[in-house]
Amino acid sequence: MDDKLLVALIFLGAIAALVFAVIMAKRVLKFSEGNDLMKKISASIRAGANAYLKRQYKVVAIFFAAMFVILGVMAIFNLLTPYVPFAFITGGFFSALSGFVGMKIATSANARTANACQEGLNRGLRVAFSAGSVMGFTVVGLGLLDIAFWFFLLKFVFQLSPEDITGAMLTFGMGASSMALFARVGGGVFTKAADVGADLVGKVEAGIPEDDPRNPAVIADNVGDNVGDVAGMGADLYESYVGSIVSACALGVAAFHSLEAMALPMLLAAIGVVCSILGTFLVRTKEGASQKQLLGALSRGTNFSAILIAVLALPMVYFTLGASNWTLYFAIFAGLVAGVLIGQSTEYFTSDSYKPTRKLAATSETGTATIIIGGLSVGMLSTLIPIIIISICVLVAYFVSGGAASAANGLYGISLAAVGMLSTLGITLATDAYGPVADNAGGIAQMASLDEKVRERTDALDSLGNTTAATGKGFAIGSAALTALALMASYIDKVHTIDKSALGINHLSITNPAVLIGLFIGACLPFVFAALTMNSVGRAAQSVVIEVRRQFKEIAGLMEGKAEADYASCVDLCTKASLKEMVLPTVVAVVAPLIVGLVLGCSGVVGLLAGATVSGFLLAIFMSNSGGAWDNVKKYIESGVHGGKGSENHKAAVVGDTVGDPFKDTSGPAINILIKLLSMVSIVFASLVVAFSIL
Amino acid sequence: MDDKLLVALIFLGAIAALVFAVIMAKRVLKFSEGNDLMKKISASIRAGANAYLKRQYKVVAIFFAAMFVILGVMAIFNLLTPYVPFAFITGGFFSALSGFVGMKIATSANARTANACQEGLNRGLRVAFSAGSVMGFTVVGLGLLDIAFWFFLLKFVFQLSPEDITGAMLTFGMGASSMALFARVGGGVFTKAADVGADLVGKVEAGIPEDDPRNPAVIADNVGDNVGDVAGMGADLYESYVGSIVSACALGVAAFHSLEAMALPMLLAAIGVVCSILGTFLVRTKEGASQKQLLGALSRGTNFSAILIAVLALPMVYFTLGASNWTLYFAIFAGLVAGVLIGQSTEYFTSDSYKPTRKLAATSETGTATIIIGGLSVGMLSTLIPIIIISICVLVAYFVSGGAASAANGLYGISLAAVGMLSTLGITLATDAYGPVADNAGGIAQMASLDEKVRERTDALDSLGNTTAATGKGFAIGSAALTALALMASYIDKVHTIDKSALGINHLSITNPAVLIGLFIGACLPFVFAALTMNSVGRAAQSVVIEVRRQFKEIAGLMEGKAEADYASCVDLCTKASLKEMVLPTVVAVVAPLIVGLVLGCSGVVGLLAGATVSGFLLAIFMSNSGGAWDNVKKYIESGVHGGKGSENHKAAVVGDTVGDPFKDTSGPAINILIKLLSMVSIVFASLVVAFSIL
Repeated sequence: MDDKLLVALIFLGAIAALVFAVIMAKRVLKFSEGNDLMKKISASIRAGANAYLKRQYKVVAIFFAAMFVILGVMAIFNLLTPYVPFAFITGGFFSALSGFVGMKIATSANARTANACQEGLNRGLRVAFSAGSVMGFTVVGLGLLDIAFWFFLLKFVFQLSPEDITGAMLTFGMGASSMALFARVGGGVFTKAADVGADLVGKVEAGIPEDDPRNPAVIADNVGDNVGDVAGMGADLYESYVGSIVSACALGVAAFHSLEAMALPMLLAAIGVVCSILGTFLVRTKEGASQKQLLGALSRGTNFSAILIAVLALPMVYFTLGASNWTLYFAIFAGLVAGVLIGQSTEYFTSDSYKPTRKLAATSETGTATIIIGGLSVGMLSTLIPIIIISICVLVAYFVSGGAASAANGLYGISLAAVGMLSTLGITLATDAYGPVADNAGGIAQMASLDEKVRERTDALDSLGNTTAATGKGFAIGSAALTALALMASYIDKVHTIDKSALGINHLSITNPAVLIGLFIGACLPFVFAALTMNSVGRAAQSVVIEVRRQFKEIAGLMEGKAEADYASCVDLCTKASLKEMVLPTVVAVVAPLIVGLVLGCSGVVGLLAGATVSGFLLAIFMSNSGGAWDNVKKYIESGVHGGKGSENHKAAVVGDTVGDPFKDTSGPAINILIKLLSMVSIVFASLVVAFSIL
Repeated sequence: MDDKLLVALIFLGAIAALVFAVIMAKRVLKFSEGNDLMKKISASIRAGANAYLKRQYKVVAIFFAAMFVILGVMAIFNLLTPYVPFAFITGGFFSALSGFVGMKIATSANARTANACQEGLNRGLRVAFSAGSVMGFTVVGLGLLDIAFWFFLLKFVFQLSPEDITGAMLTFGMGASSMALFARVGGGVFTKAADVGADLVGKVEAGIPEDDPRNPAVIADNVGDNVGDVAGMGADLYESYVGSIVSACALGVAAFHSLEAMALPMLLAAIGVVCSILGTFLVRTKEGASQKQLLGALSRGTNFSAILIAVLALPMVYFTLGASNWTLYFAIFAGLVAGVLIGQSTEYFTSDSYKPTRKLAATSETGTATIIIGGLSVGMLSTLIPIIIISICVLVAYFVSGGAASAANGLYGISLAAVGMLSTLGITLATDAYGPVADNAGGIAQMASLDEKVRERTDALDSLGNTTAATGKGFAIGSAALTALALMASYIDKVHTIDKSALGINHLSITNPAVLIGLFIGACLPFVFAALTMNSVGRAAQSVVIEVRRQFKEIAGLMEGKAEADYASCVDLCTKASLKEMVLPTVVAVVAPLIVGLVLGCSGVVGLLAGATVSGFLLAIFMSNSGGAWDNVKKYIESGVHGGKGSENHKAAVVGDTVGDPFKDTSGPAINILIKLLSMVSIVFASLVVAFSIL
């Protein structure tokens, strides 16, 4: 295929996505924000989220400046190409921008969704889903734009070799991952500190309902949804998307030494954008549709996109890689199927329509301890099926790509599976991102004392969002594991290009003590990381609890609704706490592979990456699914079973849900980013490790 | 060294240990059991424990008979030597016997300890510690006896080659591991179901104190201590001890092809017995000693033994392996030091004298959810230091043994580190096993309404036991990881002897998809296993809760102390539940490596073993330390801080402790056995996998 046509196609994909995002954004903004009170609430949520992000970006900027200097110095000493520091910065910038745009539209859509829900469920869905689409297509659009921009620059302006092109492109993956980790951890700590804090004092101690305006942490809670579940998720999925594409590009070059193999993942992503846009048009129902019909409408959109890309990928593989390599198509297909299946397994273990969560709900009869034990074991047990799915997917992807004859081909196949899984991210993210918008809309409906029916409708949308989020999580976790494996392969490839002798086949044997120890340390990192982030949430939540208790005590008339709570102080508290807390985990992620590399050498790093990928995958699923199951048990009990709202059983379920909050929304998703960031850091600093390691 | 002298020395070590155990048992039995009520309570605990073990052995016998037939058929088809099925049976038998003897003496010592505590703390310590010594020296005595017996038989009667000798000896390791897993899971489910059930209704709902005779589950709870913490631990540590020795023997043969290298681990163990016996004589204090002095006395004993073996090991290595290999001594030394350090790290993270547990106690101020989140993160964070310790230990052991020149030598070094760590098991187990005896004594003191002072003294002993148990756990977990690595190496070695081509160096590369997928599946197994065992505890505890609630409701005058509870029904319930629950996890452990092997081949199995070892080590530490920290937080709060007994904070801590129960006493320790059993099963069925695997 012609190089220029290729760049043009990728640019076209990027622009199509961004234009579609703008159209969707305009559609959202046409709706009314409702009455003055709703406008005021929405404005204060927006202000809080804005203020938080501004301060977050300031802290992150320091990190990026420091890294820029370090990479710059390395480039001066010829340990890196001079493009690397700049690529690093753009990756971080676009990742941050994805989160920022998502947050902007989400905070503009929340009151509009609440208001639209006054007229009907379907109208509410349209606003929320459009807002989700803005986010989804901004993420893929900016991702493709960054990729196309660098590809154009490095290929046509600087005329680099394919190897050097992918080398620089992996660096903007690292920039994106670093930013994503900051956003996920910072946002995750903010949202859960506010949520846990609000729940512990409001719901458990004072006995007032969720989102009650008397609760001083209620605005912080809603701000948190936007900075964590929206801005954090945006940066996170930008990173997943870009990471999977650039690692596949790099492995394509390693396997086929051709521009075509490098182009395939980018093309796949560009075509995926078109499939996703077409899919969104199928998301519509007639007025008065049931919840099941709504879910059907959403599924119709994502399924259509997935089937379309599955069909189009076949000729694409055939024409890019040639007739002799057309079986690589099945790697892409395996990735798509694996993503869907992991999502279904997630839903099985966390939805109250199935046995595990129903049984977990029953353990509430014997109190808090049994529901905690039960939830932990549901999460641990739920790791088995995804592990088997991903194992089969890896095997299939490896062997259909000719891995039996050439390992490089097989590894390229694994990376294509990840790209296949994420090719329709535009629409899957849209169905995922509309959840927090609906959640916020519910909060506003409650605070603005709208009709009971409105809250019911936003709840219906929210609960629908939980189901689609389960599918989204399947894609996020599955692609993270595959991408991490691909990045590990890229790392080995990179080390080979630096120094052939640094990593002989002997060195990678699992009986090599450096590999083994790397494995131990790598596997430990997600545990440490989860502990640090949970601690952060715990500490931050405690400070919120104390502040909320103080306000209840000191502000006269607050509980009677005669005085207004000091919402801003809680927002400020969460902001400060989360900014403080997000630094250490990120530093650990950047420094650990460097130290291990300098002591144990490149084999130790490979062991570390394998260990972190394996244990990170398990912990992420365990924590996400435990959290999801507890969340749905609480909702299930609130629907009236096992004593319903206010019963002892419900209280036990609320504790479970609170424990699950940092599990599923802070630690779990952050681990997905961690395992990729570790690889990216290793790749970027590979030359340093090869030159200076002890072993 | 002369072969016959060697056998004689090992037999001598075994006999010394067993004779010492008998002397200690006689010393215990000389003490009085106290008044009639105490005798009656002790008798019913004894009867319950006896009845449970009898039924457990019946179930286990079916499994062993089935395995005997399977191994027999394999032997007929020449896939195994004919000694293997018999070796398998003796391993299981002696493991069971270790548990049985421990239980016998513990149930005889509990009332005696309570009675001795009437006279003074020191006297109580003497009875309890003597009982612990019986258990400790029975385990090592029977372990050495089995090893010496088979070595004698295979070497002198059947005149086999060293390779075939170690092959058969690894099989009795598998017998021991299978039995240990049944005992740990069955006993663990029993004890925690009873404990959780008793606490949930008694302490939390009815508000009566622990060990109150009005609680129908109180006898079951005390029976549980004996069948879980004593019989389960005995079988478990028998398995660890024997497993580490036989794997070191096998690797010694692989590395040096000499009887000397095979003899060293056995000799080390035999000399270790003598050092341990000498150490016990130092465990004595003057009457009226403070708790700190008591701890000092215990530490003096274990430290003396450790230093003595550290000194004696040097000439032993020098004379067995020759002057050119004396540096292998440092492998043993590294193992000893690593064991101590992991124990200290455990203590740091779980003892209320240090920051982590104190901080965790403070989280009780904000309720149950924060104490659960905090405890989980303490456990996860506590994995880091042991991982670093074990990593350094592996590196040192590998390189001082000449691993740089020959991998086989390095792996032998790692296995010697495990043997070094466990060489003084006699005394470390004695200081560990006396804890449950003291715990039971406290229960009897409470039920027999002895003086408040007696309970205080048994509590002091019990809390002392918690500290020494932390050290014991360090040795158990550390040696499990090292032994599992050694067994993995033995597996690779075994496959090489069957078919050189089945496992080339290429096949073990971490980029081989079979290895990678094995890694994923292996790492998943401890999660699944933990989930299954926690579920088992949850289910069994729920049935106890329902029964206790029923009795409180239906037995008139029970709460007023006018009627007696139906203790037997709770014991029976726990027995049935735990026997039912112990089967599935064990079957999973036996079947998983077989299936993975048949699909992915030997490389897949190696991946599985590495994955299981790494994630099992992490999960075991995480779960044990979370559980330990919660337990001590509860005790710490009961000492009067953060509101003390009966406060809301205390209630939150009780929930934490209840969640921690299956963590630290069921799932955590069972994972240690699991990771070794997986390797043993793989080794025994290696010929089957080589012959019939798909990949």
